[in-house]
Amino acid sequence: MEKLKILFVISLLLLLSPPVFAQRKSVDLIIQGGSVVTMDAKKRLILNGAIAVNKDKIVAVGTVNEIVQKFSSRQTINANGKVVIPGLINTHTHIPMTLFRGIADDLDLQEWLTKFIFPAEAKNVTEDFVRAGTRLGLAEMIRGGTTTYCDMYYFEDAIADETAKAGVRGVLGETIIDFPVPDNKTHEEAMRYAERFINKWKNNSLIVPALAPHAPYTVSTEHLQNIKKLSDKLNAAVVIHVAETQAEVDDISKRYNARPVEYLNKIGFLNNKTIAAHVIFANENEINILKTRGVGVAHNPQSNMKLASGVAPIPQMLKTNLPVGLGTDGAASNNDLNLWEEMDTAAKLHKIFAKDPKVVSAEEAFEMATIRGARALHLENLIGSIETGKRADIVIVDFDNLHQTPFYNVYSNLVYATKANDVRTVIINGKVVMLDRRLLTLDENVIKRTANAYRQKIISSLSNQ
Amino acid sequence: MEKLKILFVISLLLLLSPPVFAQRKSVDLIIQGGSVVTMDAKKRLILNGAIAVNKDKIVAVGTVNEIVQKFSSRQTINANGKVVIPGLINTHTHIPMTLFRGIADDLDLQEWLTKFIFPAEAKNVTEDFVRAGTRLGLAEMIRGGTTTYCDMYYFEDAIADETAKAGVRGVLGETIIDFPVPDNKTHEEAMRYAERFINKWKNNSLIVPALAPHAPYTVSTEHLQNIKKLSDKLNAAVVIHVAETQAEVDDISKRYNARPVEYLNKIGFLNNKTIAAHVIFANENEINILKTRGVGVAHNPQSNMKLASGVAPIPQMLKTNLPVGLGTDGAASNNDLNLWEEMDTAAKLHKIFAKDPKVVSAEEAFEMATIRGARALHLENLIGSIETGKRADIVIVDFDNLHQTPFYNVYSNLVYATKANDVRTVIINGKVVMLDRRLLTLDENVIKRTANAYRQKIISSLSNQ
Repeated sequence: MEKLKILFVISLLLLLSPPVFAQRKSVDLIIQGGSVVTMDAKKRLILNGAIAVNKDKIVAVGTVNEIVQKFSSRQTINANGKVVIPGLINTHTHIPMTLFRGIADDLDLQEWLTKFIFPAEAKNVTEDFVRAGTRLGLAEMIRGGTTTYCDMYYFEDAIADETAKAGVRGVLGETIIDFPVPDNKTHEEAMRYAERFINKWKNNSLIVPALAPHAPYTVSTEHLQNIKKLSDKLNAAVVIHVAETQAEVDDISKRYNARPVEYLNKIGFLNNKTIAAHVIFANENEINILKTRGVGVAHNPQSNMKLASGVAPIPQMLKTNLPVGLGTDGAASNNDLNLWEEMDTAAKLHKIFAKDPKVVSAEEAFEMATIRGARALHLENLIGSIETGKRADIVIVDFDNLHQTPFYNVYSNLVYATKANDVRTVIINGKVVMLDRRLLTLDENVIKRTANAYRQKIISSLSNQ
Repeated sequence: MEKLKILFVISLLLLLSPPVFAQRKSVDLIIQGGSVVTMDAKKRLILNGAIAVNKDKIVAVGTVNEIVQKFSSRQTINANGKVVIPGLINTHTHIPMTLFRGIADDLDLQEWLTKFIFPAEAKNVTEDFVRAGTRLGLAEMIRGGTTTYCDMYYFEDAIADETAKAGVRGVLGETIIDFPVPDNKTHEEAMRYAERFINKWKNNSLIVPALAPHAPYTVSTEHLQNIKKLSDKLNAAVVIHVAETQAEVDDISKRYNARPVEYLNKIGFLNNKTIAAHVIFANENEINILKTRGVGVAHNPQSNMKLASGVAPIPQMLKTNLPVGLGTDGAASNNDLNLWEEMDTAAKLHKIFAKDPKVVSAEEAFEMATIRGARALHLENLIGSIETGKRADIVIVDFDNLHQTPFYNVYSNLVYATKANDVRTVIINGKVVMLDRRLLTLDENVIKRTANAYRQKIISSLSNQ
C-alpha cells in the first residue's frame, strides 16, 4: 500500500513536471545572456543569446530561452549586458620576443635587426628564455581575448608545451633558416627537429604544429622545396614571411627573375597549407596566384607602419575574397600583442592610404580578426565563429564602459571603441582560462618577475657587446 | 623653578632636532616615489622623484630625499613603481559629440556630415545635451590622464561650467559659423554670446575662453576679421579648422586665389593666439607662415585617417619646430578621446607615410601630447611639463602591467605599450580628480545612464527623419 502510494506520487510528479526539463541534456557549460556576435555565414547577432558547450565543442547556439529549454549545465557563466564574440585570432607572432618589447625603436629595419635584435637573440635565446617569453605573451594575449595565435620562432617545441599548458590554441611553426640559430645549426638539423616536433604534437587538440621557413630571401630554393615536401608528407601547415620589404622584392627579382609571390608559385611552394605573413608587395597577378593556390595571408598593420615597411593591398585582397587575418607580429616591432588595436588601425590605415573612408569597414576588420583569420590559418572548420560543432573558443567582453558609451552599432563599437582591457572572460577549447579578468592557467606575478629578470640579463648582454 | 625646567627641556629638544625638519615648509600635497618624466627643457627624468604641490602650483620637483627634507604635506600620494608624467593635452575636441560615438562610420566626410551628423545635431543639440555629452567626455578623458583639452562646439558656456565643476582645464571656444546653429542664429548673435562668454570666464583658473570660427570655408572674410578684432580686444585665443580636406583647399583657392593658410595670413587673421586644427594641406611656404605668425597646430591622426582626409606634414612641422599638439577630434570620428592611441598612431602613421621609421620618435610623440601641445595652445608657461611654478597637472601611470613588461625605454613604453587604462591617479590644478582609478568629481553611473537615455532619443530622432 505504502509502495503504491509512493509510486503514485512519483508518477504524478513526472506527469506534472514540464516536459522540457525531462528532456534537458546535460552539458559542461552554458554562457547565458548578452549579445552573441556569431560571425557565422549569416552574421547572426543574437540578442539575449546563449551558448551550450560540451567538452571542447559548441553544441548549440540560440536565445537564452531556446538553450535553457534544451540544456542544463554544470557551470553557467552570466554574460548579461556583455557582448559574446568568437575568440580573436592573431595570425602572426614571434611570441618569445615579447621579452624584447621596446628594446629598440624608431630605427631602420636593417639597423634594428643587425644592431639590436640579432645580437640580443644570439646572446639570450635559450629554451628557458623562449618559455619565459611565451608565458608572458600568452598572458597578454589571453587578457586581450586572443584565443588562437600563429607563431614562428626557435625552440617551438617548448612554445607548444607552454601554450598547451596555458590552454591556448596555436599554429606553431619551427623556424627554418639558412644560418645557424639558437636551436638548430644546419638545415638538416632544423628539418629533423621540425619533423619530430610535428609528429609529437599533431594529435594535440590545441596545437597545430607547422613548418616555418623564415623568408624567400633567407632560405634557398632547394631548402624551400624540401620543406614543401615535408609539409606534403606530414600534412603540415607552412608559415613564411613573404614580400615584407621593397628590398626583398628587389633581391628576389634579381636572384630569380620573379617577384616573391611569383617565385614561390613557380617553385611549387604555395598551396592551401601556406600561411604568408605580411605580403605587402603583391600586384594583381600575385593576389590572383594567392587566391588560386588557397594561400592564407597574415596582415600586420601596426608592425608594418612602425618599421615603415609598406602598406599591404588589403582592400584589393578583400575584394578578391582572400583569406586575410590580422597579426601583431612580435612585440619588439609593435610593441604589444593587442588585436583590438590592430583592428582599429587596419580600418583606419587603409582608409587613409586608399583615400577612401569606405574601405575596410569595422565589420570587415572584425571579420579579419575572427572568421577570416581562421580561414587564413586554414582552420575555418574549427574556429573563427560561434557555431554548433566548432571548438568552444569564446570571449565575453564588457560593452558598457565609459569609452564604449553610448553605442549604436556592435561592429563599430568593437573595432573603434573597445579596448583589450574590456575583455572579461575567455574560454578556449571549452575551458575557462580567464574568469572576470583573473587568469586561471598562468601566474601573472611569477611571469612578470621572470620577465624582469630577463630584462636585466638582456640589458647587460647588449651593453657588453 | 618648574618653568625653567620646561624651558630647558624645550631648548634641548629644539637643539637636538634635525635642523632640516625645523625648516620644512608645509604644502598641500606631495607626490612621492616613482620615475618623474618632467618634459622640462632638459627632459629630466628623475628616478625616485617627488613633487611638492601647494594650492594650484608645483612648488618643487626633485628626488624624494630633496623634497622630504624641504617640505611636509597634508596629503601624500605614493607613486612607487609608477611613472609620473605631465597631464596629457588634447588639442582638439568637440566634446558633446561623445554622445554621437559610432553613430555612423566608414562613410565619406560629406555623406557622414550631411546624412548623419548635421541631422543628428539639428534634432538633438540642446544645452542639456551639451552638458550630458561634456560630462561623458570629461570622465573618459580623466580616466585616460588628459588634464587639458581644447574644444569647439555650441553652448560653450555650459561646457565651461561642466568642465570647471569637474576640475578639468579647458581652452573652450564658442563656435561661430555662417548658418543658424542650435545656440545662435546669426553672426551678430554668436559674437555677442562669445563676448559675454569670454568676459564671464576670463579670470577662471581652469577655463581659457576662446572664439571658434568653424573654418575658412564656412565663415566669410568679413566675419573672420570681426572675430580677429574681438580676439585682439579681449586678448582671447581663436580656435579654427584649417585645411582639413582637399575640397577645402580647392574651394578656398577658387574663392580667394590663395591656399587656406595663405588666405588666412593675407587677411591678417593669424597670430600667436591662433590654434589651427588639422592643417593637413600645408606646403613649405605655409608651414613658414604658421611658424612666423606663432600659430599652434592641433594634429588629429586617427580622425584624419578614419575620414580619409589626408596626412598632415608633421615631420616637416617638427623640423621647423612648430608648436604641434595631438588631438582626438570628436568621438564621432575617432571613436574615442584616447590620447595614448593618438601618440602611438602618430608615431606609426608618419613612419609609414614618410617611408622612414626614424621620423616622429616615441619621444617626439610624447612631447606632442605634453609640452609641445601646451605650446600649441599658447599655454606653455602654465602647463605641459612638471616644473616649479607651473600649474600642478600631474598624472600617475602604472608601469608594470603585463602589456608593459619588460620595459627598456620610458618614452617607448609610454607611447608604444601603455594604454589609457594604465592611468591610476590624475591631479589637475593641484586637485586630485581621480585617485586609484576612482573618479572624484564625476559620477560615472549617472553619466552612463544619462548617455544611454540620449542614445535612445538620438536613434528615434534619426529613424524619424
